[in-house]
Amino acid sequence: MAAVVLVQGASRGLGLEFCKHILSKKSEAVIIATCRNPEKALQLKDLGVRYPEKVTILKVDVTRENEIKQASEIVKSKFGKVDLLINSSAMLLPSGKGETSLRDVSCEGLVATLTTNTVGPLVMAKYFSPLLMKGSGAFGQQTADESKHHSGILVNMTAKVGSIGDNRKCFKSLWKNKTRLGGWYSYRMSKAALNMATRNLSIELGRGRPKVVCVSLHPGTVDTDLSRPYHKNVPKDKLFTTECSVQYLMNLIDNLSVDKTGKCFAWDGSEVPW
Amino acid sequence: MAAVVLVQGASRGLGLEFCKHILSKKSEAVIIATCRNPEKALQLKDLGVRYPEKVTILKVDVTRENEIKQASEIVKSKFGKVDLLINSSAMLLPSGKGETSLRDVSCEGLVATLTTNTVGPLVMAKYFSPLLMKGSGAFGQQTADESKHHSGILVNMTAKVGSIGDNRKCFKSLWKNKTRLGGWYSYRMSKAALNMATRNLSIELGRGRPKVVCVSLHPGTVDTDLSRPYHKNVPKDKLFTTECSVQYLMNLIDNLSVDKTGKCFAWDGSEVPW
Ligand SMILES: NC(=O)c1ccc[n+]([C@@H]2O[C@H](COP(=O)([O-])OP(=O)(O)OC[C@H]3O[C@@H](n4cnc5c(N)ncnc54)[C@H](OP(=O)(O)O)[C@@H]3O)[C@@H](O)[C@H]2O)c1
Ligand SMILES: NC(=O)c1ccc[n+]([C@@H]2O[C@H](COP(=O)([O-])OP(=O)(O)OC[C@H]3O[C@@H](n4cnc5c(N)ncnc54)[C@H](OP(=O)(O)O)[C@@H]3O)[C@@H](O)[C@H]2O)c1
Repeated sequence: MAAVVLVQGASRGLGLEFCKHILSKKSEAVIIATCRNPEKALQLKDLGVRYPEKVTILKVDVTRENEIKQASEIVKSKFGKVDLLINSSAMLLPSGKGETSLRDVSCEGLVATLTTNTVGPLVMAKYFSPLLMKGSGAFGQQTADESKHHSGILVNMTAKVGSIGDNRKCFKSLWKNKTRLGGWYSYRMSKAALNMATRNLSIELGRGRPKVVCVSLHPGTVDTDLSRPYHKNVPKDKLFTTECSVQYLMNLIDNLSVDKTGKCFAWDGSEVPW
Repeated sequence: MAAVVLVQGASRGLGLEFCKHILSKKSEAVIIATCRNPEKALQLKDLGVRYPEKVTILKVDVTRENEIKQASEIVKSKFGKVDLLINSSAMLLPSGKGETSLRDVSCEGLVATLTTNTVGPLVMAKYFSPLLMKGSGAFGQQTADESKHHSGILVNMTAKVGSIGDNRKCFKSLWKNKTRLGGWYSYRMSKAALNMATRNLSIELGRGRPKVVCVSLHPGTVDTDLSRPYHKNVPKDKLFTTECSVQYLMNLIDNLSVDKTGKCFAWDGSEVPW
C-alpha cells in the first residue's frame, strides 16, 4: 500500500511546500492535507485538482478537538494508517507580530497562541497516534535491530527561539536587533511547551511496539507570511525559500530512526538544546 | 520602609507556607497574599486576623487579567513597591490528576492547565514588574558591583518534571512507577513554558536598571493537595513537609543575585536543566 503522509496546516508556507515536495519527490506517497479553511486555500485546492488521486484535503482547525477527531476517523476508514504526520501550523500571535516586551503580553494572546501552536499538535497526536502505529515504516531509516523498527514518524515544527537554553544567544545573532531581546513571549513559550510534548510523546510512543519516532524540527528562517514582518532584520543569505528549507527537512526525515526520537533538530541536522 | 512580599496562590500548600514562614522569620516584612477565593481560604484568613498590620489579602484568580491588574493598582497605591513576588499557584489538571497517557489528553484540560500554570504567572509579571523595579533590594544578595544590584526578585514555582532534558530520568526515580513514564502532559508542558517565561523575563528585566532577578524554583516533592494522589509512590524520606521545603527555598532566595537570574534551581540549590 502507498505511503501515507498527513500535513497539518497545509494552506500556506512550509505546510503547503511539504505537500508540493512530496508530490514531486515521493511519487509512491499519498497526502492528506488539512487546513482550517479549505475553500480559501487556493494553492492547496489547485494541488488537489492537479493530483486528484494523491491529495485528500480535510478541514481541521487545530484548536477544535472535534474536527481533529472527525478527520482521524475519515483517515482511518480511507487509509487505515499514517506513515508520516507533520504538524506545521503556528502563529507568532493572533496579530501576526510577537510581543516586543512585557507591555504587549496579554492573557488572551498567550492563550490563543498556546492553543494553536502547542495544544493543537498534541491533540493531533492523540487522535493520529493509533494510525501512526499502523504505519508501514515508509519514512526514515530502520535500524539493524528489528526490535527497534518504527511504524510511523511524527514531526512537530518548532523554532529555535523556542529553545530555553539558547534564548539569549539566538536572538542576538538571528535578528541582529538587541531591542528585541527577551520578546516573543507567547511564541517562545508555545514552542518550549511543544518541545516538551515531543519529548513526552517519544517516551509514550517509543515504549512498546510498534514504535513511533517523534521529533521537533526547526526549519531555519524561512520566507513565509509568518516571518514576513521581520525580514528586514534577517541577512539575505540567512533567509531560506520554502523549497530549500523543506528539502533540508525531508533529508532529515529520511534519516530519522528510533535512535533520534525525542530530540529537536535544526534544518542542518544539528541538535537544538532544550 | 518595610520589605514587601507578594505571594500569589496563598490559600493552601506552599503559598500559604511562604506566608507563615515570612511572618515568623522575616519580622521586617509585610505580605500581600492573593488567592482566588479569600472567603474560603480559612487558614489564610486566620493569618490575616492574627497579623492585621502585616497581612493584606487580595482576591486574584490568576486566569483573569483584570483581577491581576486591579490588585497591582491596589498594591501600587498602598505599598508603592514589591521586593519579592512568588507565583505559587498551579494544578496538575482541573481533575487534580495528571494524564497517565495520551488517552487522557484533551484540548480543554491542556488549555485550562496552561492558563493557570503558565499564562497567570506571566501576566502577574506584566503588572507587577514595574513595582518590582521599585523594590529596595530587601531580598537576596547584592553583588560587589553596584551596577548589577537588583531591586526585586520574581520567583516562579516550577517542577522538575517540567525539565525537558530531565524528563525520562526524573520520572523513573521519583515515582518509581514505570507505567507513568511519559504522562502528565499538561503539567509538564505548562512548566516547560513557564521556565521559558522565566528566562525571557530575566532578559527583559535584567537589561536595564534597576534589575529584577527572575528564577524558577523546584520545591522537591512536598506534602500538599497537589501531590496527594501520588504519595503512595513516593518514598517517605523524599516527601517534604511544606515547612521543610519553604525553609530550603527561602535559603535559596536569600542567596539570589543577578548572577543567578534566568535559571532554574531545585530546593537543594542544584541547577535543573531545561
Ligand atoms: N517561517 C519561519 O521562518 C519559521 C521559523 C521557525 C519555525 N517555523 C515554524 O514552521 C511552521 C510553519 O510556519 P510557516 O512559516 O509556514 O507559517 P505560515 O506561512 O504563517 O503558515 C502558518 C500556517 O498555520 C495555519 N494555521 C494557523 N492557525 C491554524 C489553526 N487554528 N488551525 C489550522 N491551521 C492553522 C495557517 O492556516 P491559515 O491559512 O488558515 O491561516 C497556515 O497554513 C510553524 O510551526 C512555524 O512556527 C517557521
Ligand atoms: N507539591 C509538590 O510536590 C510540588 C512539586 C513540584 C512543584 N510544585 C509547585 O509548587 C507550587 C505550589 O504547589 P502546592 O503543592 O502548594 O499546590 P496546592 O497545595 O495544590 O495549592 C495550589 C494553589 O494554587 C491555587 N490556584 C489554583 N488555581 C488558581 C487560580 N486560577 N488562581 C489563583 N490561584 C489558583 C490554589 O488555590 P485554591 O485554594 O483557590 O484552589 C492553591 O492555593 C505549584 O506551582 C506547583 O506546581 C509542587
